[in-house]
Amino acid sequence: MSVGTELLLGEITDTNAAFLANDLKGRGVTLHFKTTVGDNLARVVSTLKQALERSDLVILGGGLGPTDDDLTREAIAEVVGEIPVVDEVYLEQLRGFFLSRGRTFPEQNVKQAWVLPSGEALPNPVGTAPGWFVRPTSGEHKGKIIVALPGPPREMKPMWLEQVIKRLKLPQSGFYHRTFRTFGIGESHIAEKLGELTLASNPSVATYARRDGVHVRVAASSGTLERARTLAQLVEERVKSALEGFVYGTDDQTLPQILARLLSAKGQTLSVLESMTGGLILDELSNESGSSAWLKGGAVAYTLGAKQRYGVVLEPGVSEVSGEAALEMATRARSFFGSDWAISTTGVAGPELLEGKPVGTLFVGIAGPSGSPFFATMGAGDRRTLKERSSMSALGLLWRTLLADKGEAQMGVNP
Amino acid sequence: MSVGTELLLGEITDTNAAFLANDLKGRGVTLHFKTTVGDNLARVVSTLKQALERSDLVILGGGLGPTDDDLTREAIAEVVGEIPVVDEVYLEQLRGFFLSRGRTFPEQNVKQAWVLPSGEALPNPVGTAPGWFVRPTSGEHKGKIIVALPGPPREMKPMWLEQVIKRLKLPQSGFYHRTFRTFGIGESHIAEKLGELTLASNPSVATYARRDGVHVRVAASSGTLERARTLAQLVEERVKSALEGFVYGTDDQTLPQILARLLSAKGQTLSVLESMTGGLILDELSNESGSSAWLKGGAVAYTLGAKQRYGVVLEPGVSEVSGEAALEMATRARSFFGSDWAISTTGVAGPELLEGKPVGTLFVGIAGPSGSPFFATMGAGDRRTLKERSSMSALGLLWRTLLADKGEAQMGVNP
Repeated sequence: MSVGTELLLGEITDTNAAFLANDLKGRGVTLHFKTTVGDNLARVVSTLKQALERSDLVILGGGLGPTDDDLTREAIAEVVGEIPVVDEVYLEQLRGFFLSRGRTFPEQNVKQAWVLPSGEALPNPVGTAPGWFVRPTSGEHKGKIIVALPGPPREMKPMWLEQVIKRLKLPQSGFYHRTFRTFGIGESHIAEKLGELTLASNPSVATYARRDGVHVRVAASSGTLERARTLAQLVEERVKSALEGFVYGTDDQTLPQILARLLSAKGQTLSVLESMTGGLILDELSNESGSSAWLKGGAVAYTLGAKQRYGVVLEPGVSEVSGEAALEMATRARSFFGSDWAISTTGVAGPELLEGKPVGTLFVGIAGPSGSPFFATMGAGDRRTLKERSSMSALGLLWRTLLADKGEAQMGVNP
Repeated sequence: MSVGTELLLGEITDTNAAFLANDLKGRGVTLHFKTTVGDNLARVVSTLKQALERSDLVILGGGLGPTDDDLTREAIAEVVGEIPVVDEVYLEQLRGFFLSRGRTFPEQNVKQAWVLPSGEALPNPVGTAPGWFVRPTSGEHKGKIIVALPGPPREMKPMWLEQVIKRLKLPQSGFYHRTFRTFGIGESHIAEKLGELTLASNPSVATYARRDGVHVRVAASSGTLERARTLAQLVEERVKSALEGFVYGTDDQTLPQILARLLSAKGQTLSVLESMTGGLILDELSNESGSSAWLKGGAVAYTLGAKQRYGVVLEPGVSEVSGEAALEMATRARSFFGSDWAISTTGVAGPELLEGKPVGTLFVGIAGPSGSPFFATMGAGDRRTLKERSSMSALGLLWRTLLADKGEAQMGVNP
């Protein structure tokens, strides 16, 4: 249950439920229902009652603040039929917290020190709102578990992992899964390569078309995690060999992460000259900590004048939106920034045609120590989507080129 | 109700519910509950039954595809106790759709041509799944309305706006709201300035701390939209004057949008030299269509060597992370790219200290036709959050500088 009018109206995006669903799935617990309800006591109470009727464990996120709008504690107390008492020790800590910051303690905040007779408060080292772990010992909800967590993810996550999990005493997990992230191959082509592998249900093999390429997930259940892993092993090997040359990473690994590792391992540097992608490639690469070590520099150059500042010269009749232009941009960026590798993008992000080329056109240039290819591709979507897909294509092509340079994969398949 | 295991597990983000909640709010209908349920017939049925017990209108999103996992039609039929019949006319259209693409018609797709006796199918010009509009004429749910919409937003939105709204026959809307987006002022400082304005409930004035600054929303309800607007007017004026100099836009306007308009109106150009923000500012600006007209160029330069390529020279003893460096970067970018304005960022995105400066340190330089100030600020958060906040700060400072240059607002308040 996510509690909060802002969540209900989508004014803030609820990422907690997905985090909890995934974490629980890995521990063998399946999420059946997720309900969002506004800051209204009667509705939180009725939703919690329903949730307890159909589930053994109910997790509430949000509504633990100190204001009159924060009603999660009140709702739990009403549903389990208990009266909250004030935890005097924690109340003193709370007062001290405010005093140490030179602020007076607002009396309404006392309720953040409440506990229920059948519950315990979960410490929150990051904020003022403790969580609640409630296990009614009598009444109609006897034996059920109610967990209340703060709304902010940076408070919720450590509390869940460090405080709640150990109290839940879950049976040993028997769910194993591994995701392979691919580049340069479509979902139907993958389905062909996987063939009958996708028909079995345990281990199961499923494909998901994502913004950053198609993900292939192998999952297996068994009595223990170890047995599930063993069960999945053979299928995992077969999936890996069927998709050879297309898998850039596993599980949470992203392309910028993989590129960062490859470049660091080779002791090489990269620069970027972006037209079509307008800075997005640089933004994505610079999200990696330590990127300043291998990201030698980069620029956004839309106009021919801007490109010329980096030494770009186009033969008469050569379009700025062409493979030749992409190659020239990459080659010049490589020498301007003095990097081992350089990538460039030129294309049409829309909404209007450019140089007669349709929206979605993309050329990627790559310049490197062992030669400089260019690639052409077409995408569809609005301006932002095109920028994202183009950035992904450019990074994927660079990944394949870097691998080929090490002799680890063959080139030549266009995305 | 959002139907789909991928939604429940957060593997795809549900944006439909927020769109519907906001659209309905503007029409005077309040969303009370939002439930997400996986592709499981018994659970969709039980959730729909509960929803119909507590609401007059239930909207389901997703589960209208042709596969065995798409169970929304089956669930509605079971809950209202009716047997679906095949709409032969639509079935022929569906067959034609497949034939015209040279594909055979899969027999399982017949269920996309189902209708219920008490319902009608809603045409879907964008996809193959029609929606459903069901109003049971007998039984326990008589008089209630069930709407089923396809999951993909680009199919859902036109169907909602063009097909569902006119069938709902809602009373004339009486809800008016306006959001003011601010820069350079915190929530508590805004609360002080607004004073007693926030105490009334109609019109109400509420503040929301968002990633791109604090939003202040004025909302009013009355019999008609016109009366609600009139009711809000005076309060809106008072909020506007209380926040003078801090409001950069209203409703959906973003800072890059506002900057694009200001620069276009002035016929001036901009360039960017980013260190701390690593390309994010360029990415955000280039999301605006037509940005190539005023975004003269930009670059990411982490190292001193990279900065020197743009002409940056630092006096001995001057740190790369300093106001002087930010100012020098902006000044040099302005002449390198030949733009009217230039902004720069230098700071510490983390996770490690840089030049002895703590993570979160940010200096923004602005160079322009009428002088070049720099600004210093501190942020908190992880690398990505810091990049986002720093980008917002830099864009906000540029906004204030551009306004001051027109003589429309006074400067001097740091963010």
